[in-house]
Amino acid sequence: MTDVPDIVVSRLPVYLRALQYMVINGKSTTSSQELGEKVGISAAQIRKDLSQFGEFGKQGTGYNIPFLIDSLLQILKVEKVWDVVLVGMGELGHAILRYQGFVNRGFNIVACYDSDPLKIGTKINNYSILDVKDLVKDAKKAEIKMAMLCVPASSAQKVTDLLVEGGVLAILNYAPLSLAVPTYVRVQYIDPVIGLQRMAYYLNK
Amino acid sequence: MTDVPDIVVSRLPVYLRALQYMVINGKSTTSSQELGEKVGISAAQIRKDLSQFGEFGKQGTGYNIPFLIDSLLQILKVEKVWDVVLVGMGELGHAILRYQGFVNRGFNIVACYDSDPLKIGTKINNYSILDVKDLVKDAKKAEIKMAMLCVPASSAQKVTDLLVEGGVLAILNYAPLSLAVPTYVRVQYIDPVIGLQRMAYYLNK
Repeated sequence: MTDVPDIVVSRLPVYLRALQYMVINGKSTTSSQELGEKVGISAAQIRKDLSQFGEFGKQGTGYNIPFLIDSLLQILKVEKVWDVVLVGMGELGHAILRYQGFVNRGFNIVACYDSDPLKIGTKINNYSILDVKDLVKDAKKAEIKMAMLCVPASSAQKVTDLLVEGGVLAILNYAPLSLAVPTYVRVQYIDPVIGLQRMAYYLNK
Repeated sequence: MTDVPDIVVSRLPVYLRALQYMVINGKSTTSSQELGEKVGISAAQIRKDLSQFGEFGKQGTGYNIPFLIDSLLQILKVEKVWDVVLVGMGELGHAILRYQGFVNRGFNIVACYDSDPLKIGTKINNYSILDVKDLVKDAKKAEIKMAMLCVPASSAQKVTDLLVEGGVLAILNYAPLSLAVPTYVRVQYIDPVIGLQRMAYYLNK
């Protein structure tokens, strides 16, 4: 299954999230039509995407939601929880650290880092802010594979190089610039302005 | 140009951001190769994307960066600044309100809203938090077309309906669920877990 297009992979977490809401709302079966309406993707596309990974639905009865959720959790490798480090403890880093929505969806922030001597050693919730100088050593020792990067744009590449040196393979980057990484490292970008600009294109002034 | 694929539109803000960094770093010309290395997209793809909107480069001399920036600003309709409302003044809403990176890239937060009586009327920076009950009326009056949504998932659809009623046509949604909107309204999603799950797919446990 290594040749599944990334665009298909990108939709699986969206299906998973919608299915998990359906369970919360007491549903146990659904159809590609119903799921499609929830996520704004055609039923045909959903069936095609899921068929790349096996047989999940029966004609006439649709999808068993708990089974499909379990399958997606396994496909996405989030049936267990990944340890994640957070670098950059400005206002955004604080908001991310306090956000309750990671661990129940597969990700646990295990440590947070900053370079500011005034912040290092202070506590937020149950976390002590650690010195970014220890990042490489700590990440190697704990075999950390994922990181969230919330540092200013001016230091984002430098910290990225440290993450890569520490063995991190996946970076969620909140800094508003493209990062240079080796081909075996993945980056996903969160830049609200990119989303706004993409929508502005379709507006009439 | 209404038939440009959305996937092409989605890359334009990424090109724009990289070009703006080049200017900051003192560059005035670039090539599709160089830009491609910065953004992790092939030179051929960049040339193909830009060719949908006109002739921007000359063979041999490449792209004039300020001209290409001006062109992209116009194509994306962000050569002027859009007024945006922010709804949901929890920790994330506060971080967004304090973020300095919107106005110089085309977006100005003009008002922020919450439903919590303890928050309404309090001040953050130069903003007074307004009552979400006034959202429809205010948005209509000020002809607001764009919004950022940072409310909890449980109230996201309800607030979305208010935004649509108020005439908003583009919503940047930070709540972790898919929103139902009329076909003429656009939504972009910012859910960090979606990005993390998408990368976890490629990791070995």
